[in-house]
Amino acid sequence: MTMFDASPRVRDLQQRLTAFMQEHIYPNEAEFQAQVNAGNRWEHVELIEQLKPLAQQQGLWNLFLPPRTDTEGQFGAGLTNLEYATLCEIMGRVWWAPEVFNCNAPDTGNMEVLARYGTKEQQEQWLKPLLAGEIRSSFTMTEPEVASSDATNIQAQIVRDGNEYVVNGHKWWTSGAGDPRCKVTVFMGKNDPSAPKHLQQSMILIPMDAPGVKIERMLTVFGYDDAPHGHAEVTFRDVRVPLSAMLLGEGRGFEIAQGRLGPGRIHHCMRLIGQAERALELMIERSESRVAFGKKLSEQGTVREMIAKSRIEIDQARLLTLHAAHMMDTVGNKAARGQIAAIKVVAPNVALAVIDRAIQVFGGAGVSQDTPLANMYAQARTLRLADGPDAVHLETVAKEEYRSHAPKQAKETVHV
Amino acid sequence: MTMFDASPRVRDLQQRLTAFMQEHIYPNEAEFQAQVNAGNRWEHVELIEQLKPLAQQQGLWNLFLPPRTDTEGQFGAGLTNLEYATLCEIMGRVWWAPEVFNCNAPDTGNMEVLARYGTKEQQEQWLKPLLAGEIRSSFTMTEPEVASSDATNIQAQIVRDGNEYVVNGHKWWTSGAGDPRCKVTVFMGKNDPSAPKHLQQSMILIPMDAPGVKIERMLTVFGYDDAPHGHAEVTFRDVRVPLSAMLLGEGRGFEIAQGRLGPGRIHHCMRLIGQAERALELMIERSESRVAFGKKLSEQGTVREMIAKSRIEIDQARLLTLHAAHMMDTVGNKAARGQIAAIKVVAPNVALAVIDRAIQVFGGAGVSQDTPLANMYAQARTLRLADGPDAVHLETVAKEEYRSHAPKQAKETVHV
Amino acid sequence: MTMFDASPRVRDLQQRLTAFMQEHIYPNEAEFQAQVNAGNRWEHVELIEQLKPLAQQQGLWNLFLPPRTDTEGQFGAGLTNLEYATLCEIMGRVWWAPEVFNCNAPDTGNMEVLARYGTKEQQEQWLKPLLAGEIRSSFTMTEPEVASSDATNIQAQIVRDGNEYVVNGHKWWTSGAGDPRCKVTVFMGKNDPSAPKHLQQSMILIPMDAPGVKIERMLTVFGYDDAPHGHAEVTFRDVRVPLSAMLLGEGRGFEIAQGRLGPGRIHHCMRLIGQAERALELMIERSESRVAFGKKLSEQGTVREMIAKSRIEIDQARLLTLHAAHMMDTVGNKAARGQIAAIKVVAPNVALAVIDRAIQVFGGAGVSQDTPLANMYAQARTLRLADGPDAVHLETVAKEEYRSHAPKQAKETVHV
Amino acid sequence: MTMFDASPRVRDLQQRLTAFMQEHIYPNEAEFQAQVNAGNRWEHVELIEQLKPLAQQQGLWNLFLPPRTDTEGQFGAGLTNLEYATLCEIMGRVWWAPEVFNCNAPDTGNMEVLARYGTKEQQEQWLKPLLAGEIRSSFTMTEPEVASSDATNIQAQIVRDGNEYVVNGHKWWTSGAGDPRCKVTVFMGKNDPSAPKHLQQSMILIPMDAPGVKIERMLTVFGYDDAPHGHAEVTFRDVRVPLSAMLLGEGRGFEIAQGRLGPGRIHHCMRLIGQAERALELMIERSESRVAFGKKLSEQGTVREMIAKSRIEIDQARLLTLHAAHMMDTVGNKAARGQIAAIKVVAPNVALAVIDRAIQVFGGAGVSQDTPLANMYAQARTLRLADGPDAVHLETVAKEEYRSHAPKQAKETVHV
Repeated sequence: MTMFDASPRVRDLQQRLTAFMQEHIYPNEAEFQAQVNAGNRWEHVELIEQLKPLAQQQGLWNLFLPPRTDTEGQFGAGLTNLEYATLCEIMGRVWWAPEVFNCNAPDTGNMEVLARYGTKEQQEQWLKPLLAGEIRSSFTMTEPEVASSDATNIQAQIVRDGNEYVVNGHKWWTSGAGDPRCKVTVFMGKNDPSAPKHLQQSMILIPMDAPGVKIERMLTVFGYDDAPHGHAEVTFRDVRVPLSAMLLGEGRGFEIAQGRLGPGRIHHCMRLIGQAERALELMIERSESRVAFGKKLSEQGTVREMIAKSRIEIDQARLLTLHAAHMMDTVGNKAARGQIAAIKVVAPNVALAVIDRAIQVFGGAGVSQDTPLANMYAQARTLRLADGPDAVHLETVAKEEYRSHAPKQAKETVHV
Repeated sequence: MTMFDASPRVRDLQQRLTAFMQEHIYPNEAEFQAQVNAGNRWEHVELIEQLKPLAQQQGLWNLFLPPRTDTEGQFGAGLTNLEYATLCEIMGRVWWAPEVFNCNAPDTGNMEVLARYGTKEQQEQWLKPLLAGEIRSSFTMTEPEVASSDATNIQAQIVRDGNEYVVNGHKWWTSGAGDPRCKVTVFMGKNDPSAPKHLQQSMILIPMDAPGVKIERMLTVFGYDDAPHGHAEVTFRDVRVPLSAMLLGEGRGFEIAQGRLGPGRIHHCMRLIGQAERALELMIERSESRVAFGKKLSEQGTVREMIAKSRIEIDQARLLTLHAAHMMDTVGNKAARGQIAAIKVVAPNVALAVIDRAIQVFGGAGVSQDTPLANMYAQARTLRLADGPDAVHLETVAKEEYRSHAPKQAKETVHV
Repeated sequence: MTMFDASPRVRDLQQRLTAFMQEHIYPNEAEFQAQVNAGNRWEHVELIEQLKPLAQQQGLWNLFLPPRTDTEGQFGAGLTNLEYATLCEIMGRVWWAPEVFNCNAPDTGNMEVLARYGTKEQQEQWLKPLLAGEIRSSFTMTEPEVASSDATNIQAQIVRDGNEYVVNGHKWWTSGAGDPRCKVTVFMGKNDPSAPKHLQQSMILIPMDAPGVKIERMLTVFGYDDAPHGHAEVTFRDVRVPLSAMLLGEGRGFEIAQGRLGPGRIHHCMRLIGQAERALELMIERSESRVAFGKKLSEQGTVREMIAKSRIEIDQARLLTLHAAHMMDTVGNKAARGQIAAIKVVAPNVALAVIDRAIQVFGGAGVSQDTPLANMYAQARTLRLADGPDAVHLETVAKEEYRSHAPKQAKETVHV
Repeated sequence: MTMFDASPRVRDLQQRLTAFMQEHIYPNEAEFQAQVNAGNRWEHVELIEQLKPLAQQQGLWNLFLPPRTDTEGQFGAGLTNLEYATLCEIMGRVWWAPEVFNCNAPDTGNMEVLARYGTKEQQEQWLKPLLAGEIRSSFTMTEPEVASSDATNIQAQIVRDGNEYVVNGHKWWTSGAGDPRCKVTVFMGKNDPSAPKHLQQSMILIPMDAPGVKIERMLTVFGYDDAPHGHAEVTFRDVRVPLSAMLLGEGRGFEIAQGRLGPGRIHHCMRLIGQAERALELMIERSESRVAFGKKLSEQGTVREMIAKSRIEIDQARLLTLHAAHMMDTVGNKAARGQIAAIKVVAPNVALAVIDRAIQVFGGAGVSQDTPLANMYAQARTLRLADGPDAVHLETVAKEEYRSHAPKQAKETVHV
C-alpha cells in the first residue's frame, strides 16, 4: 500500500521547476509589475517573452496535457493529472508564472479541449500556435444577464445559416481577452432551444478579430484589472464562422464543458494551494521580523496558532486535490465529479483563509501593493465564483453522497 | 427600564438624513465614480462640493461632536455618542457620503482633538476651517518600519530646537492626504525616548505644505487607490514648526490618542454597520431577481440562511456598538475601553462576513466595478488593521475581563 | 436617548437575587447532586423545598409574569419582559435554581398560558397551586414519529365524545414529568384534521394521573437523566377529560403556542446567558490556577483570546435578547417574532461555544462530574432543538427580513 | 505515482471486517447496551466474549502491531500503519467493536509498548495474555492536581528502595480500569526530579491488584460512565513492585511516551473517522425519512449543505490521517510528529462537527439513548483533551513549521 511515490521523472521536474522559480520568477516579481505599469497595460509583457524560451529549453513546457487526452502522444508531456498537479502547485506560487511554462488558464483548458475534441484542421489552426505559446485564447461562457452558475441559463445563440453559424451573445468574465495576442475564443451558446435541456448548448471557435466581436470594457476584480491578461465584457453581434468551427458537434457543449472543467478545476486548485503555501511562507518570515509588545510576532501564541491552522488546512486541501487528480486518472473525470466538486470548494476557501491571516500579520503592508497578498486574495476570491460558485459544487457533493448511499450494500465501505 | 428611545430631535435627524441619502447620495453613486475617473483622480470631486451646502442648509452638518468634548457648546450639534451613532450609520451606507455632512474620518477625529485639547489659536487656525468644510486633514501615526499596532514602537522624532520643534519621521497610511485640500496633519512622534514608555510620545500639528513634508506615493488597498481621499506614504525631513503647534503638551500623545480613538472607533463601527446593512439590502434585491436551477435565489434554503445570519449578526453588532456609545456617554471613554475594543473587533468582521455573502450571491458582478461590494469589502478589511488590529483589541477585552473578575465581590453582577 | 436604565425596583431585585444565589445556591450545588443521587432519583429534592420558603419570604417569587398577561394584576410581579430578563439570567446561572424562585420551565410557560387564556375554573384548579409552588406541570407537544419542528405534523388526536374529549397520542420530551409533583400537562393535538392547517390543533389540560396516561420511560440527554425533573416519553390511550379542560377553544392551539413560546424562549435565552457567564467565570478562575509550559494559562495568548471572544459573544447575545424582550414589551410578541427567533438561535450557540471553551481550559475535569460544565453543555445543546431547531428560527428571521424589504419605502430605515 | 493502492491482502481484510461488522456488530448494538444495563455495569459483557472467538477464527485479531515494532514477527499481523489505519476505521464505527478484535485502546498502545520495549519476562507475563485477549490493561499518566497536558508537570513518584520501586501517585482518567479483567497498568511517574526535564519520568508496570492501588471512583463523561470499560480515579500509596517492572530503564518515560503515543493517536483518529462516517450515514438515512414543511429533509438545501460539508471534512481528515500513517511507516514516528499532531487536532474536531450536524437532523432522538450519536459526541469530545489538548498539538505543528522554514533552501519544496 503506497501513497504519493513520485517517479524519478516527476521528482526531477519538481526540482527543476523549483529552481526555475527561484532563479527567474521570484526575483522578477517587482519587474513584472513595473513593466505592466510602464506600458499601456494591455500589451504583452517583455519579461514573460524572455523567460518562455528558457522554460522551453529546459523542458518545462506544456506539462499539463494528460496522456489519455492526447491520443497520439504528440502534444503534451504525458503526465498524469496526479503527476502534473504537484508541478502546477509550484508554478502557481506566482500568479503570472504559469504563462512562462505555457500552463496558464484558460489556455490549458482550451488546449485540452482542442487536443481531445478538435478536428485535425482545428488543431492545426489553433492548437499548434497555442502549444507553441505564439497566441493566447479565451473562454466565453458567463453572461451578465443570467445566473450562469446554472449553465442551462446561457442565452447566447448559435444559429446555422447555410455554410455558416451566426453567433449573437453578451458575455463577460472572458479572462485573457485583454492580451492583444488573444486570437481565439471557445464560445458557448444555444443552438437548439427546443432540444432537451442538456443538449441545447454547443461550443464553437471564434476568432477574436472576427467582425462583430467587440470588447466592451475590462472588468476589475476588487480594484485590480489584472493587466495585461484581464477580464473582458464582450459582445458578439451577428458574428459569422464556418461550420467547421463547431466543436465536436451541435448540442455537445455540456459534454465538452464536463470534460474541460475537471482538469481546469484541478489546475486552479493546485495553483491556489501554491498561493496559500506562498502566503504561509511570507507570514512566517514577517512574524520573525516584527516585534510587538515586547515579543516577536512568531513568539505570540495566537500567531503560532494561525501558522499551525494554515499548515493543517493547506495539507488537507492538497491531499484532497491530489486524491481527486488520482481519481480522474483512474476512474475518469465523470466518476470523479464529486471529488472535483469538493476540492473546488475547499481550495479557494483555504487559500483565502491563509492569505487573510497573512494579511493580518503584515498589517497595512498586507493590503497594499508592497506584498502580493491583496492581489492573491482578490484572485482567490473570484475562484469561489468562477467555474461554478461554492453552492453549486456543494450540491454536486451532496447529490453524489445521496447516490452513493442509495444501494444498501455500498454502505459500509471505506471511502478511499 | 427603557432601551433606545430616540428623542424627537434625533428621530427627526434620522428621517431627514435618510431622505437626503435617497435624494442626493444613492442616485449619484455612479456619477461620483465617473467624476473621479474623469479627472486626475487627486483633486476634489465637484459633486461633493455641490452637496455640502445642501447638507449645511438642512442642519445635517458637523453632527458628530459630543457635548462634553465641546466645553463651550459652540462647535458641534451637541449630540451624545449614542445619538450620533444612529446617524453615523445612515451616512456610512455610502463610503464617500460622510464628507458631504463634514462627518468623515479622519477629520472628525482631528476636529474632536482640536475641540477638546486645542488652544484657542490652534482652534482658530485649524478647527474653524475644518468645521466649515473648507480644508481637510490627516493623521500621521503608523510607520512602515515597525509594528505600529504597539504604539510604543513609533520611532518618529519631535526634537525641540529653540522656539521650534524639528520633526523627522517616515509615516504611511496617512489617509486623506491625497486630497489637495488636506492642509494639516496631526503627527505622532517621540519627543523624549528617556521618559517612561507611555510618556515618550507627543502629538503635534504640521501644515502639509511645510518644507520637508513629502508625499512619497499613494498606497493601494486591494487595488483601489480610494481617490481623491487616498492613503499616502509621507516623509518628514527636518520639518520645523513653532512650539505652539504642540498639542496639550510634550509627552501627552498617548493621552490624546486614548481620547481620540474611542469616538473614532465608534464612528468607524457605525459606518461599517451601515455598509453591512447596505450589502444585505443589495443581496436581498439580487436574490429576488435571479433564477438558478428552477428557483429564485431567494427561494433557496442556503441563501435564506445567509440572509438570516446576516440580519442577526448586524443586529448584534449594532446593539454592541450602541451600548459602547452609551457607556462612553455615561462612564467615559476610558472606563468604556473594553466595550470600545469589543466593537472594533466585531463591526469589521461582521461587515466583511455580510459583504462576502453578498458578493457570493451577486457572482462575478460582486467582485467587479458594477456593484459597490468589492470596494466596501476592501475598505472594511483595512479596519481589521487600522486603529489597531483585532489581536490588540481582543487583548484589551481579555485584560478588562480579568480585571473585572479580580475582586471577588464583582463576580455575580449582571453585565449590562 | 437612553439604554438599559433599570428602575430602582429592578436594581434592588437584581442585588437581592444575586445575594440569594451567593448565600443559598452556589454553596449547595454539590449538596443538590448528592440528594438526587442518594434517593431514588425521581422524587422531589429536599434542598429545593427548604429554599423555596426563603425565596418567597424575600419576595423573589413568581417574578416572571409580565403585566399584560395578567389582566387583573393579581398573579405575578408585574415586571416587563425586559425587566424580568435581567433577573432570569441571574437565576439561570445554576440549572436547578429557577425552581427555587418558582420560575422554572416549563412551569412558567404553563402558568403564563393559564393566566392569559385560562378560565376562572382552570386558573383555580391549576394556576393557583402552580403559583404557590405546590405542584409542577409539563408540556406535551413533541412526538417521536414526526418531525415536530413543523408543528402541523403533530398527529395526536383530541376527539369530542359527548361531554368529554377523548385523547390519544404518543409524546416525548415531556420535560418535568419525572417529578412526582407534576400533576398536569398542557397537551397539544389535532381536533379537526379537516380544518385549515393552522386551525387543526388544540391545547387541552390533562391531569397526569388520568387513566390512560402512562410514562413509558425517561429519556437521557447525552448521558444525563436530569432527575428528578427528567424528560419523559408518555403515551395517552383513550384518556378522557371534560369539555372544560379545553384551553381557549377548539382549533386555537397554534394561537396559544404563539403566545406561550415567545416569553418561554426569552426565558430560556436569558438562562443560557447566565450559564455562559458562569462558564466564563469558571474558565477565568481555572486559567489563573493552572501552569503549563512555564506559564499560567491566563498568560497564554490563545487562552486570553478565548476569554475575549467569550465576553464579546455573551455581551452581544445578552443585548440581542434584552432588545427582543423590549420589543415584546413595546410592539407585542407577534411583531417581535423575528427578534425572538434570532435570539433563540444565538443564545444556545453562544452558550455552547463558551462552555466548550471552558471545558477545554479545564481539561478532563471539564467533561466529568467535577464541574457543572458538561451538564451545562448537554442542556444548552438541547436548546438548539427544543422549542424549534435553529433551522426553523433562521427561516423565520429570513421571512421577516424579506417581508421588511418588500415595501420600497421601508428600505433605508435604521433597525433599532 | 500512485496513491492508496491497497494490497490484495488488505482489501480482503477490509471486506471481511466490513462483513463481520454487518453480521455481528451492528445488529447487536442494542443487545450490548442491554447487557451492560442488566448487570452491575462493571463486569465483562458476555456478548463481547462470544464474538471474540469468532473474530479470532476469521483472522481478524491483533491486526494493529506494525512490522517494525515486532522484531521477531511473532506477535502481530505485520501490517503497516497505513494498512492498519483503513481497518481501524471500520472497527471504530461502533465504539465497543474494537475490543472484539482485540484492537481497543488503551490495550493496543500498551501491547505496542510491551512488544517494542518490554523484556522477555515482561512480555511473557503481560503481553501474551493481552494478545490472547485474556486480560485487559490501563495507562496511568494524567493527574488531577496538575495541567497534565504538559507532561513534565507529572508529580507521581517512583522511588527505588532496595530491590523494589515504591510508587506513590494520584491519577485519573485511567480508562479501562472499570473492567474487572484489567490486570495491569502502565504507570508514568518521576524517578529523578533532579534530572534534566525530559529525563525525570519513567514508565513502570503495576499489577492492578497490588497492595496500595485503589480505584477511588469512576468518572463520567457528559453523564456517561462508559461501563464496563470506564474511566477511573486511582490512588497509588506505597505500592511496591520489583525492579524488573521498570520499562526500558529509569528516566526513559518520555522516550516511551513518544513511541507509544504516535500509533495510539493514529488509531484514535481512524476510529473517529469511522464514527464520523457512521454519523453521516445515520444523518442521510434520517433525512430521507422525515418530512417538514412539505419537503423531505433530504430535499432541503441547508440539510444538503450539511451533508456535503460533512463528506468533504471527513475525506480531508481521512487523507490527512492516512498520510500521517504513511509518514510513520516511511520516515518514522519522530519525524512524523508534526503530521501526527495535525491529525490529532483535525480528527476529533471533524467528528464532532459531523456528529453535531447529525444530532441536529435527528432532533430530540439525537441527544437521547435512541441513537448512538450523543454517546459518540461525548467520546469524541474527550479526544480534544486526551493524549494532549488541541492547543498542545497546534503548538507542535507550529514548531515544526517554523523549523522547516529555518533553512533557506527548504523553502520552495512541495510538502507531499
